[in-house]
Amino acid sequence: MLEALLYPESIAVIGASKSPGKVGYAVLDNLIKAGFKGPLIPVNPTADEVLGLPCYKDVRDAGVKVDHSIIVVPNKAVLAAVEASVAAGAKAVTVITAGFKEVGAEGAAMEREVAEYCRKRGVRMLGPNCLGLLNTENSMNASFAAQFPKPGSISVLSQSGALCTAILDWSEGRGVGLAKLLSIGNKADLCETDLLECLADDDQTRVIVAYLESIASGPEFIKVAEAVSAKKPVVVLKAGTTAAGGKAASSHTGSLAGADIAYGAAFKRAGVVRAENFEALFDYAQAFATQPLPKGDRIVVITNAGGPGIMAADAVETLGMKMEPLSPEVAEHVKKNLAAAASVANPVDVLGDAPPEKYAMALEAVLADPKTDGVVVILTPQAMSDPDATADAIIKAASACDKPVLACFMGGSNVLGARAKFVAGGVPDYTSPERAVAAMKAMVGYSAWRNRPPRIVTRFPVNRHRVERVLARQARSNRKEMGEVEAKEILKAYDFNVLPGGLARTAEEAVAIAERAGYPVAMKIVSPDILHKSDMGGVKLNLSKPSEVMDAFDLMMLRISRKAPGALLRGVYVEKMGKPGREVILGMHRDPQFGPMLMFGLGGIFVEVMKDVSFYLAPLTKSEAMEMLKQTRSYALLRGARGQAGVDLDVIAGALQRISQLVTDFPQIEEMDINPFIVGEAGNLPVVADARMIISGVE
Amino acid sequence: MLEALLYPESIAVIGASKSPGKVGYAVLDNLIKAGFKGPLIPVNPTADEVLGLPCYKDVRDAGVKVDHSIIVVPNKAVLAAVEASVAAGAKAVTVITAGFKEVGAEGAAMEREVAEYCRKRGVRMLGPNCLGLLNTENSMNASFAAQFPKPGSISVLSQSGALCTAILDWSEGRGVGLAKLLSIGNKADLCETDLLECLADDDQTRVIVAYLESIASGPEFIKVAEAVSAKKPVVVLKAGTTAAGGKAASSHTGSLAGADIAYGAAFKRAGVVRAENFEALFDYAQAFATQPLPKGDRIVVITNAGGPGIMAADAVETLGMKMEPLSPEVAEHVKKNLAAAASVANPVDVLGDAPPEKYAMALEAVLADPKTDGVVVILTPQAMSDPDATADAIIKAASACDKPVLACFMGGSNVLGARAKFVAGGVPDYTSPERAVAAMKAMVGYSAWRNRPPRIVTRFPVNRHRVERVLARQARSNRKEMGEVEAKEILKAYDFNVLPGGLARTAEEAVAIAERAGYPVAMKIVSPDILHKSDMGGVKLNLSKPSEVMDAFDLMMLRISRKAPGALLRGVYVEKMGKPGREVILGMHRDPQFGPMLMFGLGGIFVEVMKDVSFYLAPLTKSEAMEMLKQTRSYALLRGARGQAGVDLDVIAGALQRISQLVTDFPQIEEMDINPFIVGEAGNLPVVADARMIISGVE
Repeated sequence: MLEALLYPESIAVIGASKSPGKVGYAVLDNLIKAGFKGPLIPVNPTADEVLGLPCYKDVRDAGVKVDHSIIVVPNKAVLAAVEASVAAGAKAVTVITAGFKEVGAEGAAMEREVAEYCRKRGVRMLGPNCLGLLNTENSMNASFAAQFPKPGSISVLSQSGALCTAILDWSEGRGVGLAKLLSIGNKADLCETDLLECLADDDQTRVIVAYLESIASGPEFIKVAEAVSAKKPVVVLKAGTTAAGGKAASSHTGSLAGADIAYGAAFKRAGVVRAENFEALFDYAQAFATQPLPKGDRIVVITNAGGPGIMAADAVETLGMKMEPLSPEVAEHVKKNLAAAASVANPVDVLGDAPPEKYAMALEAVLADPKTDGVVVILTPQAMSDPDATADAIIKAASACDKPVLACFMGGSNVLGARAKFVAGGVPDYTSPERAVAAMKAMVGYSAWRNRPPRIVTRFPVNRHRVERVLARQARSNRKEMGEVEAKEILKAYDFNVLPGGLARTAEEAVAIAERAGYPVAMKIVSPDILHKSDMGGVKLNLSKPSEVMDAFDLMMLRISRKAPGALLRGVYVEKMGKPGREVILGMHRDPQFGPMLMFGLGGIFVEVMKDVSFYLAPLTKSEAMEMLKQTRSYALLRGARGQAGVDLDVIAGALQRISQLVTDFPQIEEMDINPFIVGEAGNLPVVADARMIISGVE
Repeated sequence: MLEALLYPESIAVIGASKSPGKVGYAVLDNLIKAGFKGPLIPVNPTADEVLGLPCYKDVRDAGVKVDHSIIVVPNKAVLAAVEASVAAGAKAVTVITAGFKEVGAEGAAMEREVAEYCRKRGVRMLGPNCLGLLNTENSMNASFAAQFPKPGSISVLSQSGALCTAILDWSEGRGVGLAKLLSIGNKADLCETDLLECLADDDQTRVIVAYLESIASGPEFIKVAEAVSAKKPVVVLKAGTTAAGGKAASSHTGSLAGADIAYGAAFKRAGVVRAENFEALFDYAQAFATQPLPKGDRIVVITNAGGPGIMAADAVETLGMKMEPLSPEVAEHVKKNLAAAASVANPVDVLGDAPPEKYAMALEAVLADPKTDGVVVILTPQAMSDPDATADAIIKAASACDKPVLACFMGGSNVLGARAKFVAGGVPDYTSPERAVAAMKAMVGYSAWRNRPPRIVTRFPVNRHRVERVLARQARSNRKEMGEVEAKEILKAYDFNVLPGGLARTAEEAVAIAERAGYPVAMKIVSPDILHKSDMGGVKLNLSKPSEVMDAFDLMMLRISRKAPGALLRGVYVEKMGKPGREVILGMHRDPQFGPMLMFGLGGIFVEVMKDVSFYLAPLTKSEAMEMLKQTRSYALLRGARGQAGVDLDVIAGALQRISQLVTDFPQIEEMDINPFIVGEAGNLPVVADARMIISGVE
């Protein structure tokens, strides 16, 4: 895929320039200097020759089939340049030129026109407004960045061109090679998902690193990233995480779900490894690029210094991995081969004067221990230390096994040689124990995702027609807020339990419904204009005889019409009182980017004050639904804490799965809360005590 | 203070050796090479000359007054070496030799003997089992670390000698100077507090960096660190943070308070800046060493690249600082002087091709803006960038103002020159936006601590004698667990409200107490052997007439003696029912290191399940007590959330202050819980509904 983009046979530079300092000069110069093997065709109507190459007025004049055009002409001339390129055979164009969508409406229109042109002709475009692209496999530097990295197995996608220059400069300074680097610019045609797919199939690429500020299509991203992550790790730094969510929300679920939570949920689903900051991006990438994945989370730390060993152990525990003791026979072997003062607990302290052989002995023994899943090796440069030879020994031991080894050589001057050896030898080396351990954690998390059970989404038998009817009626009412009566009708159709009851328009009807449902009953005002019923005195509970029901009806209608004079009062909902139980809230909020996101939380203050809720993207499997429960701090309460029985967790998980099915079936349900959903001990029927929905497409 | 340690006129090296590779060689060689100006006296019975200096059999033979002895002889010879040194005039000794407390009981005894000897003679000892010490002000490298840093204003204390070598190597690699470096070893005499005090008065030191694994005395540390922090910042990395707390705890408070929470509380009280990891330690130190403190938390980011600017803005918000817009006139000025596409929102984007002058213009304008408290300046090396000249411009602007400027030049090769300029020019430079922002946050936090209001601890009038009597009675009972009756008696003496009631030994007494207290009453079994009263059926509530009280008494005594046959049943506590209110838990746990630590949390599940509690060290001021309430997530509930009235926050704060006074007055109170403490709206009397204490000194 995208052969012409990354492996063109020939490249035209449209807007090539003779003036050093111009982008059109830099691009051609970079292509020449990096050593691209195929024909290079500079195009510029005012020159016959640029940088020693014959230059053409029009790309079509070159008499050579052009695979890929790099376009650096002014924005208004870009469309013509693309047209000429396509006529000359180009299957890919990279538009470096800026001045499009990012500068306003006029630019956006030009950009759409160019993208549309490409789309119609099956030509793929990178950019506009980008730095260009680099491929170390065919020595192609089709960018205006002067630095060209050595070949490596990390590929980079970046929505910030400036960040690409910083990455290239880092790569040169650190000596870490790259495979491909693509500056994705305005993403008028090729976006992150296209390029992820492309790099997934690229043999040179072992890990994909991406810096993203936005995602073109949430669902597409999840689908593609999940497929790509199944082949190789994708490490993403998503910037703009604290920006306020895209739209105001009117449900609990909506108000608790920020954009960053949605990105987190999407990355989790798709197996994307999230980097918390810029340094983590390449810390993780280097681990993935060179080391095998750990099979578990039992980490051993080997060190020649107590302090840094403690720092590493702290980090392992803080990040939720395990510092397990060595197997007794391994511990004995290591102990026997070290000085008496050495420790073979985990961390293994080989002592300050440990020569390379002691490191090698300890590392080899620990790697052979079936109780070890990964190793972090720390060195501080002490008087007797030989950092270079120790690095060699670590590289040798790491290469000979299928468990990840990460090094942490602390210091500066004295470990420079060792650092270079590590880069060359394919063992990542970190400047602090905490960074090494964080990289190990990224690998452990990705490995667990790779080995996750298959995702099987249950389809429950439901009554879709009934929901369609309720939604159609709601649409005719022209109100986006759907009250309890209709929301419960919809939920009944998806097999939720609702207590017997009905809408009463008169006191007599109220009594009739109560008699039918059975006492005691609850009564709640029904009005599209009143959202917080209890605040208005619109809720009465535990009414146990006809006279109480009549009194409650009349008083409610009288008082509420006084308090809220304009409100439309449709009547009072009369319902049998449910058995008491644990109140939970189940919700759904449709993220503008990633679609329906389910929420779970313990009801009342747990949601409103403690914000102790969890989110997952629909569609939801049973194990994901269970995971949602476990992720709340109040999970212990559900399972049954001191003196209180636990509730039926399966019914909550089932309810979340049915909501997942409902909101997947009916995209017009914009938001919903079941609040509270009342659950009892296992075997009891759970009940929807109240529910609301927001429907899209109506005011 | 410690003049002889850091500024000796002459130094003896006892155990100096002619053999390269030996510590006794390295120390003398390092002293010579670093260029120490005063007399150096090698001592070794087997040599006449070492490294060109006359060597003596005994330090007393040198005929020179020795100020400071560096001792590297074997452990068993150390005491004699110290004795000889003292006889030769030494006021300070540094014992590098290992093989003391760290190897077992025999070593510990030798160590105590040496320390005792020094103490008696007023001689201060560093070590044993340490790397030694360095002072760049007098070119003294009295350590076996070969690297000697250039002079700077960061001083280092480290409990890990190996970490010292890593720090020295980092210092050399990065070119950052140090003032003093002290390896504190086993701390037999001089410990972290002595050295903090000493460095507080050292003019060369602008910031103190400490790596600590333990603290010799918690209260002493707090007192000294607070005094030192008032003069200059102390940045501490405390390792071993996830180790399980030192002792099992039997109260809620005890079980929720880990050792790390106590360290956190101590550092907060003392104004110590906590570094979360090794890199943060020097990231923060470099900012403190070179930049003025910010006066507030409004941070402006200047960048030539959008992406890194977003990363910085994310970090500013995540760390609780403010990204405020520039003042309109400043924004206008900057806008006018930049290209049209530049942004003067915060982040200020000077664009990718910004020359040094544009950076200077923007930085100067922003620094002059009264709305700016600190600036982070980011550069990515792009085609037109001039990192070196930009660094010069930033250094010039930063030097001319009293606001902190931190740089973040991203990349590698192309910014090496700029990084060196920054080190020389006294502007800290970080490799990622997040690290620069974290350093700014450390400065903002320390600055706020420096400007905190004075700590005034209120003393309430109380009845100490009554407490003494209850405690004496408890001591005679030989039980460390004190039940409700006695605990409430103590709390009454400290002016807590306890409901009327008393201990009934018979059913008739129970009725008499109920009549006196007034119905309805609560009844609770009183037994030192029963901790969870309600689990055993030992609690009855809302009894409203004599017959109910009699029945409850007899049934409780009967059933509990059946369920817990061996338990001593002292009777039943009968108490007037309190008005309902919000239940909170107030507790105290005596940290083995830092002493009494107060806890606050909302009662019941908030504590048990959500662990939503806050801790502060006693003694507590009113504003600290209020801060404890605010630090819980459930604070919103206390203030009054949807539909519920708030409670009287002042009475909770007052109760915490009174507990603080109680546990300060009576160190034998080891732990206590008031659970629940029932508070109502402002103006209502709060009530101690139940309380327990653990008393030390008894089984």
